[in-house]
Amino acid sequence: MEKPGLPKGTRDFGPLQMAKRNFILDTIIESYKLYGFQQIETPSMEKLSVLTGKYGDEGDQLIFKILNSDNYLKKADKDILESDLDNRTKSRKLTPSISEKALRYDLTVPFARFISTNAGTLPLPFKRYQVQPVWRADRPQKGRYREFYQCDADVVGSDSLIFEADIIAIIRDVFRKLNITDYTIKLNHRKVLTAVAEIVGMSENPTALFVAIDKLDKIGLEKVLEELVDKGLSNENASKLKSILSISGGFESVLKELEGELGTSEAFKTASNELTNVLKLINESTDHLELDPTLARGLSYYTGCIFEVKVNNVSIGSVSGGGRYDNLTGIFGQPGLSGIGISFGVDRIYDVLEELDLFPETVNETSSILICHFDEVGLLKGQQIANQLRASGISSEVYPDKSKMKKQLSYANRKLIPYVGMLGDNEMEKGTIMLKDLASGEQTELSIQECINKLS
Amino acid sequence: MEKPGLPKGTRDFGPLQMAKRNFILDTIIESYKLYGFQQIETPSMEKLSVLTGKYGDEGDQLIFKILNSDNYLKKADKDILESDLDNRTKSRKLTPSISEKALRYDLTVPFARFISTNAGTLPLPFKRYQVQPVWRADRPQKGRYREFYQCDADVVGSDSLIFEADIIAIIRDVFRKLNITDYTIKLNHRKVLTAVAEIVGMSENPTALFVAIDKLDKIGLEKVLEELVDKGLSNENASKLKSILSISGGFESVLKELEGELGTSEAFKTASNELTNVLKLINESTDHLELDPTLARGLSYYTGCIFEVKVNNVSIGSVSGGGRYDNLTGIFGQPGLSGIGISFGVDRIYDVLEELDLFPETVNETSSILICHFDEVGLLKGQQIANQLRASGISSEVYPDKSKMKKQLSYANRKLIPYVGMLGDNEMEKGTIMLKDLASGEQTELSIQECINKLS
Repeated sequence: MEKPGLPKGTRDFGPLQMAKRNFILDTIIESYKLYGFQQIETPSMEKLSVLTGKYGDEGDQLIFKILNSDNYLKKADKDILESDLDNRTKSRKLTPSISEKALRYDLTVPFARFISTNAGTLPLPFKRYQVQPVWRADRPQKGRYREFYQCDADVVGSDSLIFEADIIAIIRDVFRKLNITDYTIKLNHRKVLTAVAEIVGMSENPTALFVAIDKLDKIGLEKVLEELVDKGLSNENASKLKSILSISGGFESVLKELEGELGTSEAFKTASNELTNVLKLINESTDHLELDPTLARGLSYYTGCIFEVKVNNVSIGSVSGGGRYDNLTGIFGQPGLSGIGISFGVDRIYDVLEELDLFPETVNETSSILICHFDEVGLLKGQQIANQLRASGISSEVYPDKSKMKKQLSYANRKLIPYVGMLGDNEMEKGTIMLKDLASGEQTELSIQECINKLS
Repeated sequence: MEKPGLPKGTRDFGPLQMAKRNFILDTIIESYKLYGFQQIETPSMEKLSVLTGKYGDEGDQLIFKILNSDNYLKKADKDILESDLDNRTKSRKLTPSISEKALRYDLTVPFARFISTNAGTLPLPFKRYQVQPVWRADRPQKGRYREFYQCDADVVGSDSLIFEADIIAIIRDVFRKLNITDYTIKLNHRKVLTAVAEIVGMSENPTALFVAIDKLDKIGLEKVLEELVDKGLSNENASKLKSILSISGGFESVLKELEGELGTSEAFKTASNELTNVLKLINESTDHLELDPTLARGLSYYTGCIFEVKVNNVSIGSVSGGGRYDNLTGIFGQPGLSGIGISFGVDRIYDVLEELDLFPETVNETSSILICHFDEVGLLKGQQIANQLRASGISSEVYPDKSKMKKQLSYANRKLIPYVGMLGDNEMEKGTIMLKDLASGEQTELSIQECINKLS
């Protein structure tokens, strides 16, 4: 019989992988809690109508739809089913009549729906974190999966810049705890980009500019400019754009240079004012912080500060990002709630920690001790000792069968258990245990209490 | 605009509910770890072929199927689609050609699949715990949802009875930590039931007997006997069955009485031997433990000890259950691996703790302090103090806007934050903070360090 496989783009996580993932998630969650975020969960399925139209046409195709239960053809749209449309068009048009539910595509839209569904019962500003899987029918490739965890925190119901400051502080807190030292938080403001669009004469179609800027990392500045000139940007404006997008340096000097280029724009004045205030709220500390006028972030709902975090000198894309939005919940009938959110990419952080060898040696969650024995009496006695150890909070196992010592030790080794406690006649007579450190090979005969003290 | 709703049978969990759920899950997980279980996760989706046929015909209908992506009609079985079958039959037959994946229905089948997929790389016996949602297209009703968490632990690859003992110990450990004192662990052995079937002449069709016994709680002994007599059980055997199923009392006296009735059966000898050994491995302690020959548990894959846990004097069904199976992974090409599993019903335990008012007062996960202020300077200063507190591990918030003190306090109250720290000109001048205990109303002026000590 062939081994049963997994659906494309999905993964099993074994014990060691889980321990490493938990290390990352626990670190992020601890920081979220320090800043007053509380956990919520939303259902894996949402009504299809809640999800469609929120991620663009392409996104809609990547949403996993759930077939209605049992007699689904009863409600299937017969006109479409019997039409002469090509299969693809027919499939898309038929879907809403045979599928009413879908798997969430991200945590942001379900969160907006949550705010709306529970409006009136939540304290505002409402600060939540959420750690759940999301699903996308993307073509799987290295580092891209069809099921993956998102780990988001958002505040809605306040436009206070204190939350921009908190999010910068959370990023620094998380990376400090993960021992990642060489990283950059790129910060920008959507209204800086609006101002750029004004100044280079593209305020009629700013999105085209944002989309082009978004490609900078991939194709470089010259190609971006070429593309825009092809689309009608004048050479004069292209050269203006070039000099704006080339600005780099320290936070305050970048802000000053931008002022020189964009100072006449009202949008820039707002952005500059907010960025200055954020700096004040983080005690003027620009550690790891860079003001980057080329940061655009694709998502259309951002309206204020936006940011992205990149670990330097590793070949892995941004590991965190987010920004402020003015009206996310408007689509669900709750307008006027400004908010700001952050998301950490757990899979990418995992890869970074592997690449930089930063997982702590103690990350594995395994038993502290395996009790080994030579006969039935030893097994029974071992079980009693294990229960004493467990009562002191020490995770313990007894080798479950009468087996050769070699086999018992091999189990401990495979499971990365650091100590074995051997129970021979001599030890049982004296009420002791022979504790062996599997890393060093050192053996010590200890009373049970001494063993508890040692392993606690 | 109408508030957007949730799919039938699904739920949002707000911060307080999540904190209570986490309290339960963390307690169970802590015990699993003490006994050497390690966490794994499997994908939410499995290949449809992995899931179908494992839960009976009715179960198959309750599995949520995922529509293939994009152009799904291309592969749709045209013969079925254009046939004259009624809609229901047509729907069922069409499904495999438009859906290749489905949401997991429990954690047991995916675990068996995991063992098989990862065979050769796992230390045996393999002990895993798994806490993930499962989905069932059941008719929703009180206490029954279409998405709910299961919290399972299983060992496979050993028939040692030490694991029966460990599972009994885990149950006791979990209930002690949850402060539930009045509960019963009902234990039985599938081979006791096999022996009963033999003795009353039903060994040709033991399942009919098990199914009937399973209904005891609902319809009572007399009705169960009537049903079986209708199906051909002789009056003599019915009376024999009645006396067997009426046996109750202490563990050892029940075993003795069963011996009298079933002692001639080989199956009973095995069962009795194993039950006696399990008792030895739990140090002969029968605390909360009852041997119950009427416990059947529906699932057909059990072959050895089975158990169920009921909290006494609450109107909620069993909150935990499980048992030993001999060949769960056989369906995926890994025969000969005996195993034993336990599952805790998180939703039901939640209801029990609510009904008995057993959630600890401190269960809510909220900030320790909200810092309130009277002007822009106070807000900035508050932000600095909050960061000092956070550096000491105290979760802290600063009210994000300049607002009336009443509004600030109301936010703390709604979020159940126990302390506010007020920052007026006087406090800022002296480098202190006025700490107010919102429960007692008591106010104390403290230095920042004193405040940290108080809240740590």
